[in-house]
Amino acid sequence: MPRQITAYSNPLVKQVRDLRDKRHRRESGQFLAEGLRILTEALETGRVPALLFFAAASAGHERVRALVDAVERSGGEAIETTPDILSKLSGKENPQAVVGVFDEFDTNLSHLDRNASGIWLVAERLRDPGNLGTILRTGDAVGAGGLILIGECVDPFSVEAVRASMGALFTIPVVRTEWQPFLDWLRAGPGQLVGLSLDTDIDYRSAAYRGPTFLLTGNEAQGMPADYAAACDLLVKIPMLGKADSLNAAVATAVMAYEVLAQHRR
Amino acid sequence: MPRQITAYSNPLVKQVRDLRDKRHRRESGQFLAEGLRILTEALETGRVPALLFFAAASAGHERVRALVDAVERSGGEAIETTPDILSKLSGKENPQAVVGVFDEFDTNLSHLDRNASGIWLVAERLRDPGNLGTILRTGDAVGAGGLILIGECVDPFSVEAVRASMGALFTIPVVRTEWQPFLDWLRAGPGQLVGLSLDTDIDYRSAAYRGPTFLLTGNEAQGMPADYAAACDLLVKIPMLGKADSLNAAVATAVMAYEVLAQHRR
Repeated sequence: MPRQITAYSNPLVKQVRDLRDKRHRRESGQFLAEGLRILTEALETGRVPALLFFAAASAGHERVRALVDAVERSGGEAIETTPDILSKLSGKENPQAVVGVFDEFDTNLSHLDRNASGIWLVAERLRDPGNLGTILRTGDAVGAGGLILIGECVDPFSVEAVRASMGALFTIPVVRTEWQPFLDWLRAGPGQLVGLSLDTDIDYRSAAYRGPTFLLTGNEAQGMPADYAAACDLLVKIPMLGKADSLNAAVATAVMAYEVLAQHRR
Repeated sequence: MPRQITAYSNPLVKQVRDLRDKRHRRESGQFLAEGLRILTEALETGRVPALLFFAAASAGHERVRALVDAVERSGGEAIETTPDILSKLSGKENPQAVVGVFDEFDTNLSHLDRNASGIWLVAERLRDPGNLGTILRTGDAVGAGGLILIGECVDPFSVEAVRASMGALFTIPVVRTEWQPFLDWLRAGPGQLVGLSLDTDIDYRSAAYRGPTFLLTGNEAQGMPADYAAACDLLVKIPMLGKADSLNAAVATAVMAYEVLAQHRR
């Protein structure tokens, strides 16, 4: 039977709420994910929260029951609570019916099988959690092997990134590494490194992609360093017909990824 | 000579800060835009803020001077202020060097020249300001004629939308209207209405787009109503190879828009 928490002052509420801060996530090795859609996605890929808060009013909902069952079977704890507390946990006025606390997972580069997919997404110094989550969501959609984060990137386990990923954080591998280890790993096997750049005349549609293709997107404001660009097998540009000189990083990644996908499927 | 404001309590500071709220924007008919990049973009398209706040420390910066000059020449007011007040105005810890107050502008459907571009973006009940801004930014990049917002959409003049547009709010027309007036306007001339849908077998890459092409994106959570879909000349889908059933709305719009652009350029 799930226990009930209805008091704001319950120390567990504060502890879980604190997972919205990076420091607390690092200390505990846990993160928050919210919403029936995302938690169900997680469950379907075998990720069960260690702790589940759910609204008393939604206790009869089939998917909520499935989550509660899974949590209790796996030795976690399910806690029935109030909309107010859910709101406090999620930091949103209209809270989701469920909030889960998961153990962080990290995939090491060496655990990736580069032949598992023809498309891999690589982002360096990505700063916006919404962009990170959106890139994960796109990665899921194109069947990417994973997302490789290079250097000082925003935390993929931040609430905003998890939310924007719509559950893709649970469905495709995320690796955090540095440039040199990535390059060493990449060059130890087949793989075409394709960089998105403003300093090239090659249109992304006229280039030929041979898998596994690794699509490298640079920092939102600065693009990628010159030596990263120099290490690419191919630099391509997306046409920009307007006044602006760049696309949103998640948009640029998606436009590229769908071109690669279309070529690979031909 | 710009006047100086250094006191938090100055009523103008509160008044400008209040423009972050939709209600105050509606009452005043004004909105906020921040940052040298966005305000310079605005200036280049002939949009001069009615009121400009700039950091005293950046007064010598060439582009800041250009903005101050333009504001004063056009009868607006430039105000030298402190980082703290800029931070209060922008709601960010690291404030931009400039914050501008602009008069809202709105284009009526009847002012649009559908032959001005081969691509038009149409979004209905768009809820996320970041998505709206990102779609504007993509619209600028593909040379779209404008963005047409149908029904209850998020405010394109919200701080988040303006920020995500990276200045594209100033470079491409935005129209707010309802479904029936849009459809009446559309059918009074040439135009192919293309809807992004899950309920079709037509891959977006295999369809033929003939300009002017109007790309319709539905609400983030629900997609578009059945009668909107029925009114489309063509429904297409973007392949989804993963677990998720949809892309981020701004990403989907961009993937579609770049396909249309590629076909039109052939």
